[in-house]
Amino acid sequence: MGNSGTDFAPPPSPRKRLLAASISLFYRNGIQATGVSELCEVAGVSKRTLYQLYGGKDDLVAAYLAHVRDNKVLAAERTLFDDALPPRDRIVRLFDRPDPGPFRGCPFHNASVELTTPGHPAAQVIHAYKESFERRIADSAREAGCRDPERLGRTLMLLFEGATALATSTGDLTSFDSARPLVERLVDEATASA
Amino acid sequence: MGNSGTDFAPPPSPRKRLLAASISLFYRNGIQATGVSELCEVAGVSKRTLYQLYGGKDDLVAAYLAHVRDNKVLAAERTLFDDALPPRDRIVRLFDRPDPGPFRGCPFHNASVELTTPGHPAAQVIHAYKESFERRIADSAREAGCRDPERLGRTLMLLFEGATALATSTGDLTSFDSARPLVERLVDEATASA
Repeated sequence: MGNSGTDFAPPPSPRKRLLAASISLFYRNGIQATGVSELCEVAGVSKRTLYQLYGGKDDLVAAYLAHVRDNKVLAAERTLFDDALPPRDRIVRLFDRPDPGPFRGCPFHNASVELTTPGHPAAQVIHAYKESFERRIADSAREAGCRDPERLGRTLMLLFEGATALATSTGDLTSFDSARPLVERLVDEATASA
Repeated sequence: MGNSGTDFAPPPSPRKRLLAASISLFYRNGIQATGVSELCEVAGVSKRTLYQLYGGKDDLVAAYLAHVRDNKVLAAERTLFDDALPPRDRIVRLFDRPDPGPFRGCPFHNASVELTTPGHPAAQVIHAYKESFERRIADSAREAGCRDPERLGRTLMLLFEGATALATSTGDLTSFDSARPLVERLVDEATASA
């Protein structure tokens, strides 16, 4: 209220508005279920602007995923990439139960389910994301002093992907609780003195 | 060729043709990406027939999933529900690497990713499927003499869901190979004498 300094901030650009609308609609309602008209309406941009900026929906989907990644939109990613956390905590807290409410799982995985056209521009973003997520788990395991951090990282990745996928299918977030004791045990075993 | 007895078999009913087209199109191309017109064309039925038989696409999706389940269309399910296999083998062979070729993961999970409308008629089929799959793993663990078969079944379910989801995201089927040593170890530990 009143003439605060932020009143003079420029309004978000059409690009930013399209990315914000993508996060809201693609993630919540699905990529295929979201039409270009609805996206433009929510973003308050013309279709002409969308096509000028992104060339089409496929490239906007790739840009949406890159934006989610670069801005650490996901809580799990903020945990895993939080340099202030001890490396063991980064791993274990990945399995904190997500906030209640409609759970929509991993937007990168979901995009891979929805986008079946070979060579879709989002595919590269999805593959690179999953690789970097698993690498960060392995790096955290290494920093935590774990033996064979790559192998452990792969196993922990499988448990995280499993908890996420099962919660998406069933709406039951206790899959994260179920994974956690094994995660802690595997990390502890890998750091125990021989 | 010639007048073999099978020439006199009645042609598949419109219902069967629609379910066959659903398996092919919904699973391969995605549910949202498949329109009613394309389905009817591939099935060789009129839209009127589809609506008469199923009321609409949503109920057809639920029927498609129930059909996949009832006919054990998935190799993993045929393994897990094969009474001729020893219970330990049912579990471990779930993690055999699937046939190469475009991997599309679990059609039930994929439907949960695609169908975000609350109360969609497929949601119940998906939940019941995931429950019965996990229960069968737990029952197999119990038959194999494992301690705490429910808890073990849940863990093995997470590993299977994780291997499936990660392979769907990346196209790399080695996620199943990665899960297998831990699966074997957990089963062996749960059957070892104290």
